[in-house]
Amino acid sequence: MKLVLLFSVILSVVGGLLSSSMKAQPRPRELNIKIGVLPTGKLNAITDVAGVKVGQVTLVQGQDVRTGVTAILPHDGNVFQQKVPAAVYVGNGFGKLAGSSQVEELGTLETPIILTNTLSVPTAADALLDWTLGQAGNENARSANPVVGETNDGYLNDIRGRHVKKEHVLEAIKKAQSGAVAEGNVGAGTGTVAFGWKGGIGTSSRKLPEKLGGYTVGILVQSNFGGVLQINGVPVGEELGQYSFKETLDKSSDGSCMMIVATDAPLDARNLKRLAKRAIMGLARTGGIASNGSGDYVIAFSTAYRIPHDTDQPTAAVTLLHNDYMSPLFLAAIEATEEAIVNSLFMATTSEGTQGHKIQELSREKVMELMKKYGRVN
Amino acid sequence: MKLVLLFSVILSVVGGLLSSSMKAQPRPRELNIKIGVLPTGKLNAITDVAGVKVGQVTLVQGQDVRTGVTAILPHDGNVFQQKVPAAVYVGNGFGKLAGSSQVEELGTLETPIILTNTLSVPTAADALLDWTLGQAGNENARSANPVVGETNDGYLNDIRGRHVKKEHVLEAIKKAQSGAVAEGNVGAGTGTVAFGWKGGIGTSSRKLPEKLGGYTVGILVQSNFGGVLQINGVPVGEELGQYSFKETLDKSSDGSCMMIVATDAPLDARNLKRLAKRAIMGLARTGGIASNGSGDYVIAFSTAYRIPHDTDQPTAAVTLLHNDYMSPLFLAAIEATEEAIVNSLFMATTSEGTQGHKIQELSREKVMELMKKYGRVN
Amino acid sequence: MKLVLLFSVILSVVGGLLSSSMKAQPRPRELNIKIGVLPTGKLNAITDVAGVKVGQVTLVQGQDVRTGVTAILPHDGNVFQQKVPAAVYVGNGFGKLAGSSQVEELGTLETPIILTNTLSVPTAADALLDWTLGQAGNENARSANPVVGETNDGYLNDIRGRHVKKEHVLEAIKKAQSGAVAEGNVGAGTGTVAFGWKGGIGTSSRKLPEKLGGYTVGILVQSNFGGVLQINGVPVGEELGQYSFKETLDKSSDGSCMMIVATDAPLDARNLKRLAKRAIMGLARTGGIASNGSGDYVIAFSTAYRIPHDTDQPTAAVTLLHNDYMSPLFLAAIEATEEAIVNSLFMATTSEGTQGHKIQELSREKVMELMKKYGRVN
Amino acid sequence: MKLVLLFSVILSVVGGLLSSSMKAQPRPRELNIKIGVLPTGKLNAITDVAGVKVGQVTLVQGQDVRTGVTAILPHDGNVFQQKVPAAVYVGNGFGKLAGSSQVEELGTLETPIILTNTLSVPTAADALLDWTLGQAGNENARSANPVVGETNDGYLNDIRGRHVKKEHVLEAIKKAQSGAVAEGNVGAGTGTVAFGWKGGIGTSSRKLPEKLGGYTVGILVQSNFGGVLQINGVPVGEELGQYSFKETLDKSSDGSCMMIVATDAPLDARNLKRLAKRAIMGLARTGGIASNGSGDYVIAFSTAYRIPHDTDQPTAAVTLLHNDYMSPLFLAAIEATEEAIVNSLFMATTSEGTQGHKIQELSREKVMELMKKYGRVN
Repeated sequence: MKLVLLFSVILSVVGGLLSSSMKAQPRPRELNIKIGVLPTGKLNAITDVAGVKVGQVTLVQGQDVRTGVTAILPHDGNVFQQKVPAAVYVGNGFGKLAGSSQVEELGTLETPIILTNTLSVPTAADALLDWTLGQAGNENARSANPVVGETNDGYLNDIRGRHVKKEHVLEAIKKAQSGAVAEGNVGAGTGTVAFGWKGGIGTSSRKLPEKLGGYTVGILVQSNFGGVLQINGVPVGEELGQYSFKETLDKSSDGSCMMIVATDAPLDARNLKRLAKRAIMGLARTGGIASNGSGDYVIAFSTAYRIPHDTDQPTAAVTLLHNDYMSPLFLAAIEATEEAIVNSLFMATTSEGTQGHKIQELSREKVMELMKKYGRVN
Repeated sequence: MKLVLLFSVILSVVGGLLSSSMKAQPRPRELNIKIGVLPTGKLNAITDVAGVKVGQVTLVQGQDVRTGVTAILPHDGNVFQQKVPAAVYVGNGFGKLAGSSQVEELGTLETPIILTNTLSVPTAADALLDWTLGQAGNENARSANPVVGETNDGYLNDIRGRHVKKEHVLEAIKKAQSGAVAEGNVGAGTGTVAFGWKGGIGTSSRKLPEKLGGYTVGILVQSNFGGVLQINGVPVGEELGQYSFKETLDKSSDGSCMMIVATDAPLDARNLKRLAKRAIMGLARTGGIASNGSGDYVIAFSTAYRIPHDTDQPTAAVTLLHNDYMSPLFLAAIEATEEAIVNSLFMATTSEGTQGHKIQELSREKVMELMKKYGRVN
Repeated sequence: MKLVLLFSVILSVVGGLLSSSMKAQPRPRELNIKIGVLPTGKLNAITDVAGVKVGQVTLVQGQDVRTGVTAILPHDGNVFQQKVPAAVYVGNGFGKLAGSSQVEELGTLETPIILTNTLSVPTAADALLDWTLGQAGNENARSANPVVGETNDGYLNDIRGRHVKKEHVLEAIKKAQSGAVAEGNVGAGTGTVAFGWKGGIGTSSRKLPEKLGGYTVGILVQSNFGGVLQINGVPVGEELGQYSFKETLDKSSDGSCMMIVATDAPLDARNLKRLAKRAIMGLARTGGIASNGSGDYVIAFSTAYRIPHDTDQPTAAVTLLHNDYMSPLFLAAIEATEEAIVNSLFMATTSEGTQGHKIQELSREKVMELMKKYGRVN
Repeated sequence: MKLVLLFSVILSVVGGLLSSSMKAQPRPRELNIKIGVLPTGKLNAITDVAGVKVGQVTLVQGQDVRTGVTAILPHDGNVFQQKVPAAVYVGNGFGKLAGSSQVEELGTLETPIILTNTLSVPTAADALLDWTLGQAGNENARSANPVVGETNDGYLNDIRGRHVKKEHVLEAIKKAQSGAVAEGNVGAGTGTVAFGWKGGIGTSSRKLPEKLGGYTVGILVQSNFGGVLQINGVPVGEELGQYSFKETLDKSSDGSCMMIVATDAPLDARNLKRLAKRAIMGLARTGGIASNGSGDYVIAFSTAYRIPHDTDQPTAAVTLLHNDYMSPLFLAAIEATEEAIVNSLFMATTSEGTQGHKIQELSREKVMELMKKYGRVN
């Protein structure tokens, strides 16, 4: 038992360090599945937005624990003291997102964003308090608004066991870094299921051409929902005979999708909320339906400027984008969300968990056959 | 001039009576473009929801007038006295929808829904007042909440001329009927443009299998928006080289889409709003992006029960659907909206209007070729 | 009949020019009813916000017509070309406010604000289109978002007659001016009823001390609602034996209150919406309850900067107030709204209208006695 | 130290059982401060709504700990299995309320409501999970939506110490009971400050006359906010020279007010949200301003019917109140909230806490003198 635990701890640490060498499978775009008309950023990841960092801790322990933590940092300074403009959009609110009402009211994000499983939201929020209260410069802080999203990984994971501990959350924040982001069964996506296949973490980005503003939009998703999967328009769910409501009123469409949108475009909270709404449209393009039991939330933030926690200056000049220039960003958010979800499916691998439950990965081979059949790749 | 006017009046009346014999072209489903996994209702139209009626007046006059009115009646009684539960969802609010705040507050619709062009909303609202105040039984009414949606047909239509008159609105209401609904360049869709092709009115429905509740969801759209068109997942816009932001920051993605959702499922206003949100997901599946300049609104109502205007009974028993049974309705709304938009494009025909502006219809031949190329039809 | 009409036209024109000399009665503050702790602006009116203009047309014709129009202009340039940041808050949405969804989405106001009676909203909106489309510089405008609020004056006014015509609206805009604002039975307040007494137009302002920012907040209300009146905390309604629900479930509490909030503080749409919410708190302090049948809407705008309709500059620097400095503005909006409502009651006079209906003015003498009894004046 | 701790533990337990004998001071209504025109329920407490229970744990330990927990149970069955209709209204969202988005989406409350301090929200939410997952019948639950509100007691309490533990929350739930509710420095109100005086827990109710429906509305508040205090219209803050923004831009107006509204009226989530909005109007009548730093949230629920977690019955008949009969309930919520806040101030006592901070109680003697001066009591 102890050995298993030690082993699992090692796994969990390694999980956080997943490197591309470990993920032998290529990303969809490397297989010529090219979603949308806009170019991606360099890494095709949320970290293409300069300054954004991601850290993940993967918990795979014994038969029962298949969960984890994904942390997204808008910048590596003191986020509480230097807040970023932010907004939340609720696609379908069957979820436990912590912190949304303050983001809505004040238009700011003042902690990293943590993603984890449904029943670990309080633990993660408490850890965010530890982290925020403990940061140098926050000695006098008596309030902080932890933002924690979740999806329910209770099919593969012993979710009632609440295996995510505060140290896992702090570890995810600590190891957050720029660069490529591990996808699939990692972090908060370790135990998730999408369209009946193994889901997980996915990311993607779009870099607008200069004539459209030149801004970058990055998306990170925690996919855990259902519907009738289509990939780049190809009816994968129907072809493989696996989709919601195929025969009965199952709840396979339930679950959730957390979507994080980062951009360097200089947007205020109002336009960030509009941008956030488009992520749901990207989800729709994959065949997601935002089912009754789904917690589909989008958190959007901009890295273009910061809002000080305390200031002696009542006013400040902020450079903001005119409404008329928003549309290309909308398209970017839609495309990148669609691709991030597809990436999460492609990069996930078959997983067995609590109660002997097993979820198959989406067969890349079969998908590629379908891509050919439907004229999407040669 | 007078002759032209007479001619155009005739056209406008005929426009309101468009029969299937006049629309030689088949609907997409007849061409084996089968969108989604759920079966359609009998007519594949919003009028599959029992009691719902649609009336349209098409105004084609001279070179300049390309506009009209589409009226949707939830039932043919006195809607003011016998209101229906209703909700509004704003996908993107660059629009002039009249009546939304009262629907949101009270959860009821108390007039027919009128669709027309942007600058004719006041005229249409005033006509709805005429109609409502004038109905037998409403002699003492001193308030009414006209619900009028719009899109901007100002490229083909001399919209500044405000050619829609109150009599056109009243005529549309009067001629509302059950049965098949004319699509394409008709009613409020006479002058609209979608994805750079001629758009217009489109409708579709889904009838849930009994095991999923057996309810019907009907959609009617007034399509007038942009993006990167895909039909049943096939990249039509890219293939035909016509889509928004292809080269520059044009405003071709602007415009709007009004979406009306009718259902016989017994939903309260809260669940109707959730259903309304799914119509935007259907729009997303066609490649719409809800651009900055788009007024994308959804109005949803249920015919399952009525709410009396005045009553001596403080309480009433209402049969309502449990949240858990909503998801199939969500899928139905998504699919039917997608198909209604596609129908609006297929059924529209090339149109020339004010200032010599001309908008081509989407070539059915080219689309069918693409459907074959992408394996969607044989 | 014709004579009466001529007479009434004269009355209506005079109504629009009501000068302080005609209103013999002093404003409450002149009677030492001092509401709140913050100082007023110079005029104690919405026009204390520099650049804001108000124009009113009063329609008193024969026995039946007791209605009118009040126009509020954020500045006297081309508001469509030079929009102002704005927001709408819905206290209770039993109302027909035109234009709210676009203000919410885009954060801008692009027309003057018109207040009138419930059934004249379409006419007023159409007139705003005339005005906007007709302004020099707007020759190519094919869209505009008229903002029109209303309350229901149907007890004194033959509201079903829709006696407000487009020319009245245009006249109100045309005659808008800086300086003192006529209150009571004037403009859109001609036929309104508040707390069972004659209501009407009221206005007030607060000028923050420099240490609190020095900004001005101006309010204009169209009072037409019920509840249990208290003036500066004195239970006037109870003392005079006139309040809602005294004996039965009457609908005397119904009606509505339109509230316009202007400020020169540099706020974005998000903070303007927060400011707008405080106006409802001011209404609450008068004993209003936002009853079921009430349309209690607040429209807030800032004159601190403008947002161009069209621009080649994708971004612009905007000076904005930090959240932390909002609270004094909140207090200002609460106090000024409370006082504006009290002003509307004090300045209104007994009125007789359609069907012989008569509404008494609030007796200033009795109120002053109560003020003494309750220690509020000496 | 240990002795002190033991002593404080005893205090904390006793704090939860505070009986009227311990609170020598009478409630305002016993002193003839009669707020509003509607009669109270029997206990003038939220527990006048049949089935509602309240449990409180007061933590007073050493110099530093002045905090606690207040639990409100809608019924004493399994709330997760038998949910109640509910809604949340955000007056000002500078707060950390957990669970709001799911209540908004699904219209149901599925846990007791916990109130505590800002930084203990995660702990309380985690405890609610313990409690819910552990209840008989919930063995298979893998999701639950803990609802936890807060205000910031960090002036008197060492809030960074997060002294509320899960056992305190569970204890508060466990000891919840019908009957009189302790007010003042108790439970979640132990360390709060309102209008610069000691605030705390307050409660009140209204029982509508039969002709107005006969329903009961009960309110419980955790008062911790600022503004310019008035009690029943009497300018207490001004008279005692203590109010926000008296001289400088202090943050004394910050803080928060949590308001819980219970009713036995048969309302759906939409009308519960409307009812919730009126609580803010009651707060406004006390001189509260919902300052920038305030988290003013209202959670409203009805005990009139229950919504099963799982059901084989897709539809159910629900008896609901017609919109037209809502207004008396609105007045009831306004009056009871005003009185609950006043009660919280009257029943609180001078408290000294962390860092030697001391907050005086509102002097009942001085208030009664003012009541006389202003003619409110004889």
